[in-house]
Amino acid sequence: MERTFISDLSKHVGESVIVMGFVSVRRDQGKMVFFDIRDFSGTVQAVVLTKSPALPAAKEVTVESAVKFGGMVNKRPDKNVVAGKQNGNIELSVDSLEIIGKSQTLPFELSAELNLDTHLDNLPLTLRSERSRDIFTLQASILDAYRTSLKQQNFTEFIAPSLVGGDAEGGAAAFKVEYFYDQSAFLATSPQFYKQIMVGPFERAFTIAKIFRAEKSATTRHLSEATCMDFEMGFIDSELEPMRVLEQAIRDTVSAVADKHADMFERFKTTIPLIPDSIPVLTLAEAHATLGVESEPDMAPEHERMICEWAKKEKSSDLVFITRFPTKKRAFYTYEDPSETPFSRGFDLLFRGLEINSGAQRMHDYDALVARMIERGLDPAKFSFYLQAFKYGMPPHGGSSTGLERMTARMLELPNVKEATSFPRDMTRIDSRLSEDPSFES
Amino acid sequence: MERTFISDLSKHVGESVIVMGFVSVRRDQGKMVFFDIRDFSGTVQAVVLTKSPALPAAKEVTVESAVKFGGMVNKRPDKNVVAGKQNGNIELSVDSLEIIGKSQTLPFELSAELNLDTHLDNLPLTLRSERSRDIFTLQASILDAYRTSLKQQNFTEFIAPSLVGGDAEGGAAAFKVEYFYDQSAFLATSPQFYKQIMVGPFERAFTIAKIFRAEKSATTRHLSEATCMDFEMGFIDSELEPMRVLEQAIRDTVSAVADKHADMFERFKTTIPLIPDSIPVLTLAEAHATLGVESEPDMAPEHERMICEWAKKEKSSDLVFITRFPTKKRAFYTYEDPSETPFSRGFDLLFRGLEINSGAQRMHDYDALVARMIERGLDPAKFSFYLQAFKYGMPPHGGSSTGLERMTARMLELPNVKEATSFPRDMTRIDSRLSEDPSFES
Repeated sequence: MERTFISDLSKHVGESVIVMGFVSVRRDQGKMVFFDIRDFSGTVQAVVLTKSPALPAAKEVTVESAVKFGGMVNKRPDKNVVAGKQNGNIELSVDSLEIIGKSQTLPFELSAELNLDTHLDNLPLTLRSERSRDIFTLQASILDAYRTSLKQQNFTEFIAPSLVGGDAEGGAAAFKVEYFYDQSAFLATSPQFYKQIMVGPFERAFTIAKIFRAEKSATTRHLSEATCMDFEMGFIDSELEPMRVLEQAIRDTVSAVADKHADMFERFKTTIPLIPDSIPVLTLAEAHATLGVESEPDMAPEHERMICEWAKKEKSSDLVFITRFPTKKRAFYTYEDPSETPFSRGFDLLFRGLEINSGAQRMHDYDALVARMIERGLDPAKFSFYLQAFKYGMPPHGGSSTGLERMTARMLELPNVKEATSFPRDMTRIDSRLSEDPSFES
Repeated sequence: MERTFISDLSKHVGESVIVMGFVSVRRDQGKMVFFDIRDFSGTVQAVVLTKSPALPAAKEVTVESAVKFGGMVNKRPDKNVVAGKQNGNIELSVDSLEIIGKSQTLPFELSAELNLDTHLDNLPLTLRSERSRDIFTLQASILDAYRTSLKQQNFTEFIAPSLVGGDAEGGAAAFKVEYFYDQSAFLATSPQFYKQIMVGPFERAFTIAKIFRAEKSATTRHLSEATCMDFEMGFIDSELEPMRVLEQAIRDTVSAVADKHADMFERFKTTIPLIPDSIPVLTLAEAHATLGVESEPDMAPEHERMICEWAKKEKSSDLVFITRFPTKKRAFYTYEDPSETPFSRGFDLLFRGLEINSGAQRMHDYDALVARMIERGLDPAKFSFYLQAFKYGMPPHGGSSTGLERMTARMLELPNVKEATSFPRDMTRIDSRLSEDPSFES
């Protein structure tokens, strides 16, 4: 008999079916055993009744085992119907049962609130929890919606490299790689140069790229390896155009996840993010003035949280743009208009207390860019590949970079970005804790 | 005045417009100057007539400069209409002209047939050629279509890590990374373990991931950094299910690029790939017998090309599956059914002479997997993180991995996979040639 997917069971009431999936829940009531079985399409309750020939086998089934259940799809008695739940009005009455991948006894219940290290030590198991499945289902939807929005906005996707010859940002700490013949390479801290180069061929380009930061930071916001959703566009007047593209991408993404995953926001005890007709924009000085704090050249994490609370209360917005940072605090390629000195055309987007995006108009004039490099103590000779893009005609352009894990985390108000990373890497961990992993050489 | 995108110009005949873009072509006829201007949406011919106030400025415009042209959209005289070409019946009569990003004189014409090293040395420029724009537009469509097909087949996307604790395949050469506190990490040679782990949460999972291979191979097929499109699915009977999923994804991808890019296949003097109702499947032994060559434990590159010629001629197929490789020639986690010893349930997919995909049913039983590791001289303790997936219930599962660059290259019959890689890395090059780049330490 062919397998029936769990989402199709309600079409087979009164019929015999085969269901395959993982055992999420097992409740042994002695004379009968109840199961929640999940496959990619959903969850159904299965019951092995007293008279079922499968009862002895059902006693042996452990949670998380992969199983093949045969049985009849029955309507539940009215009193047992769970309204609004997938398959809440049916159950599978099991008459045959095969364990096709037996699970050992779990070290803890998957629904338990684990401390983060235990969660991370056991990811191949804990990623199966409803909480983790929610987070990464949502993340897949974010990726999809963000890409779709940028394609609708006429951007072309490209693949940016991870192995680079030097540190693109000229500042962030980069991991060193042993390359061929005793040469060294580095891991990209940003796809910045490559998306700027791609303005030449495509005018509007985006990439979903890995970035790697060797920062010794053990905060709830930092990862050694992260995923960024980057775009860059040419022929702009100012940073306002990339801000508008970004705003549309965020709006489309929130709209998509709200449509698909309303139930998740409930389970995570949060709400669908609020976005008013236009996301509020404050200059850095205005933000500090609004908070009644002294002006500083950057936003402190605490002030990021405070200004988000203000935006939510005063502007009904879970998002707020901060603009007009001092040029000297931004990457060397950030554009500064002479009339706006000493401020540059950069922006940050804050989401529920956290910076999830940073962007800017960039320098496009070859000579000015070389002069800026020298001013910052960088050697233009090391950037000769990148500089070709400017030598051969570059329009005013700009773009931004959104952190996928940060965006996912704030969407569901997760306390730590590591929970929004399928296999997070940090100072102390690559899968296993580094100090305990025999595969790591010291 | 607002900018008009070039694809919208035909709606503005008889109107004054502003167009912004790059100068692809400049033809100075003395009394007038013709330009081909491109933006993200297409190309249009612009003409600066003798009486135009912009004529002196037009003399200064260099190819690849970013420009802003103002003028009138005119119908072309009948004799100048180019049928079937975008904007082939209109031209822009320019009356104002601004160079917003001036290009230096190009070192060569972008339409020239360059040798590969010259092409790669100058990517920020050469990626702007029509040929490169075609290749990477097609690649973006492949990515999009492949993902869409897998989503339609109920797969969930996830992000696989690039930094790993050891060499996943237990064989391929991995690059070493200097991690924190004098510890070492490696760059992933495959997302294999992670997609298998993801069978637990999602049953069907896919990822577009970077893989890194430290192989000292300088062939037309090898890259140090490549992009793979990987999927994995649970609850299968054999390798036939992942083969069917893959076949559908390839079929959907070819169909999408055929719809969107028929003109490219013409420009590259190739044809839309042929896929019959079902892709032919040969065992390795059958393939060798068909070619009349001695049986070997793997396919030699020359035999891959020959069997593809056979499939095209005899089966009207540009693709052919090869199955039943000896288990000992496949990765340690490849499933071998006792009734099929010594052959395993692996498969390769060849496309126009080149292997673009490799897949298999995998081992799912914890004890058998540990035994196989020991048999291959691997230390199970080093795989403790991965092995959790099997400890806690894993169904029979399998999947495959498609090389994006190889698929792109064979789609357009490019002689070298590097041409299908936006920023290729190999033994001798990361952007610049390694021996010449001052940013590389030796």
